[in-house]
Amino acid sequence: MTGDTHLGEAGLLARMLPHLSTDPRVEVGPGDDAAVVRLPSPRMVVTTDTLVQGHDFLFRTTMPRWIGHKAAVQNLADVAAMGARPVALVVALSAPHRTEASVFEEITIGIARRAEADGARVVGGDLGSAEQLTLTVTALGALPEDQEPVLRSGARAGDVLTIGSPQLGRSAAGLALVLSGRIHVHEGRIEGAGDHADLVAWHDAPEPDLALGWGAGRGATSMMDLSDGLVRDGTRIARASGVVLDLDRAVLSSDASSLMPLAELLGEDPWQWVLHGGEEHAMLATFPPEAVPEGFRAIGQVRDAAGETDHGVLLDGAQIPGTGFDHFEGKA
Amino acid sequence: MTGDTHLGEAGLLARMLPHLSTDPRVEVGPGDDAAVVRLPSPRMVVTTDTLVQGHDFLFRTTMPRWIGHKAAVQNLADVAAMGARPVALVVALSAPHRTEASVFEEITIGIARRAEADGARVVGGDLGSAEQLTLTVTALGALPEDQEPVLRSGARAGDVLTIGSPQLGRSAAGLALVLSGRIHVHEGRIEGAGDHADLVAWHDAPEPDLALGWGAGRGATSMMDLSDGLVRDGTRIARASGVVLDLDRAVLSSDASSLMPLAELLGEDPWQWVLHGGEEHAMLATFPPEAVPEGFRAIGQVRDAAGETDHGVLLDGAQIPGTGFDHFEGKA
Repeated sequence: MTGDTHLGEAGLLARMLPHLSTDPRVEVGPGDDAAVVRLPSPRMVVTTDTLVQGHDFLFRTTMPRWIGHKAAVQNLADVAAMGARPVALVVALSAPHRTEASVFEEITIGIARRAEADGARVVGGDLGSAEQLTLTVTALGALPEDQEPVLRSGARAGDVLTIGSPQLGRSAAGLALVLSGRIHVHEGRIEGAGDHADLVAWHDAPEPDLALGWGAGRGATSMMDLSDGLVRDGTRIARASGVVLDLDRAVLSSDASSLMPLAELLGEDPWQWVLHGGEEHAMLATFPPEAVPEGFRAIGQVRDAAGETDHGVLLDGAQIPGTGFDHFEGKA
Repeated sequence: MTGDTHLGEAGLLARMLPHLSTDPRVEVGPGDDAAVVRLPSPRMVVTTDTLVQGHDFLFRTTMPRWIGHKAAVQNLADVAAMGARPVALVVALSAPHRTEASVFEEITIGIARRAEADGARVVGGDLGSAEQLTLTVTALGALPEDQEPVLRSGARAGDVLTIGSPQLGRSAAGLALVLSGRIHVHEGRIEGAGDHADLVAWHDAPEPDLALGWGAGRGATSMMDLSDGLVRDGTRIARASGVVLDLDRAVLSSDASSLMPLAELLGEDPWQWVLHGGEEHAMLATFPPEAVPEGFRAIGQVRDAAGETDHGVLLDGAQIPGTGFDHFEGKA
């Protein structure tokens, strides 16, 4: 790469910090040993997640700003999925020595803008060196005193399974295009994707409606963000709650149909993307049937486990092959 | 490596989670989207820091348990340096696919034990894959409503500069032994270090007295943890406070003398370790002369900057060559 290198930590911080806006809640921001942030309550909500170059993204098929955006989204989504509003983020960024300063700057912009859109601020971080660019974001929020966290364990037979998104499988479809080798990103434009650039953009920088989590999602009986695929994540809710989730094939057919043109182009099955595609970060939630709020779309039913020992996810009552993504096993 | 591999995320977590103890403050621990922790006040203190294999440690000269310990210490120290007591940690760990499960387990033990010794709990985390083992810890604490954070900017002319440690330069001396290629760690024993194994142990798993930070350190006019060397970190206090720190050569001579046997063995200058050695994580603090508490050792004076534009650190009034460690510049 070319451009500004060897700026040192101080020089890099001088490029990054101006992109962080402040907030009356931030008593001490970046620059001291730790940040001090006033939460709306002492019931802190915290989560952390990492993106690693070559494992979670490729530089030629995304942009530093989108990498930052995605790292923010996946952490903000975890806070939102507890029914809590994010307040602050801290960022640990390790990169190769010769990484351009603009990469640090653009990642910062990507994180800060998405965080701000959800009402949170970047309040601190750490810079270091590594052979692969590695970005760990920790998101912090709080729950009001009178509000229970929305857990994975609260789904009850008779509830409706819902997703806070109009379309499933977009990130996985975009990933399939990335892995096909057809596309690359040049000066902020996705090239080689034809009519499907929006799917790559969704994979690189997803825009789930996280306000559903700390808004209407507070009334959910269970909730999580969809990060590892509908079947795998659904199984987590099913096991934690001691129930079975039965997906509605007719409803999900429309999700699959929308992705059919790309699936045909790549010779893939769009149902794989809908059922097993991860990184959507939309809110996957269950509600009593009379209480499904606007923004959440019914995609199945919660059923009694009826003595089944292997609680999980079914499709119109039938078993589903495949189990989603595992970092240490690869695709199932 | 040999041993248990391919356990998958669930299998690895089953090895790691039993080492985490719980606490009435932890409303929701590992296993949901995010943790929920009740802080003693809503004024949250947060910091994050990363260790990267090959950059911050070498497997043949340390142990996974010590790597975890060190990652905990460097984050706990940042919370302590604000005058706050740590409450919770979250951990993001990325490792190569073939990494033994025991490595994950031992890192977890190292983090959890040191955190518990300081009253904090590991409440959540993230597992992923990377070519280099990368460990990011985020530490959380809180400040009581009536307590100001202890910043870097509060040092005043006339204050005494102190360090919350009986000996400076140990971590750097241990690192010099590591870099000399003489030592390696085998089954928990440091071999090849002769009489100096304690210095390697201090480098690999430092044991600073962090309670000085949230205890007597609350009365400091400025404080930070010593992570990048006395001169470099001292310069941060000096610049933030608009003062000059003048180190006392006679006092620091005893620190240098203690390290002389190893320095002679390696042909190095022990003053380099004392003045520029990082990763001690002891509390570096300034106090009014009449208020230096037990546990803090006077090592210099805070002087008026007297119109100097380049505020910094002096030794008996004279300039000091070298500036400590910068991740993006290497040793100065």
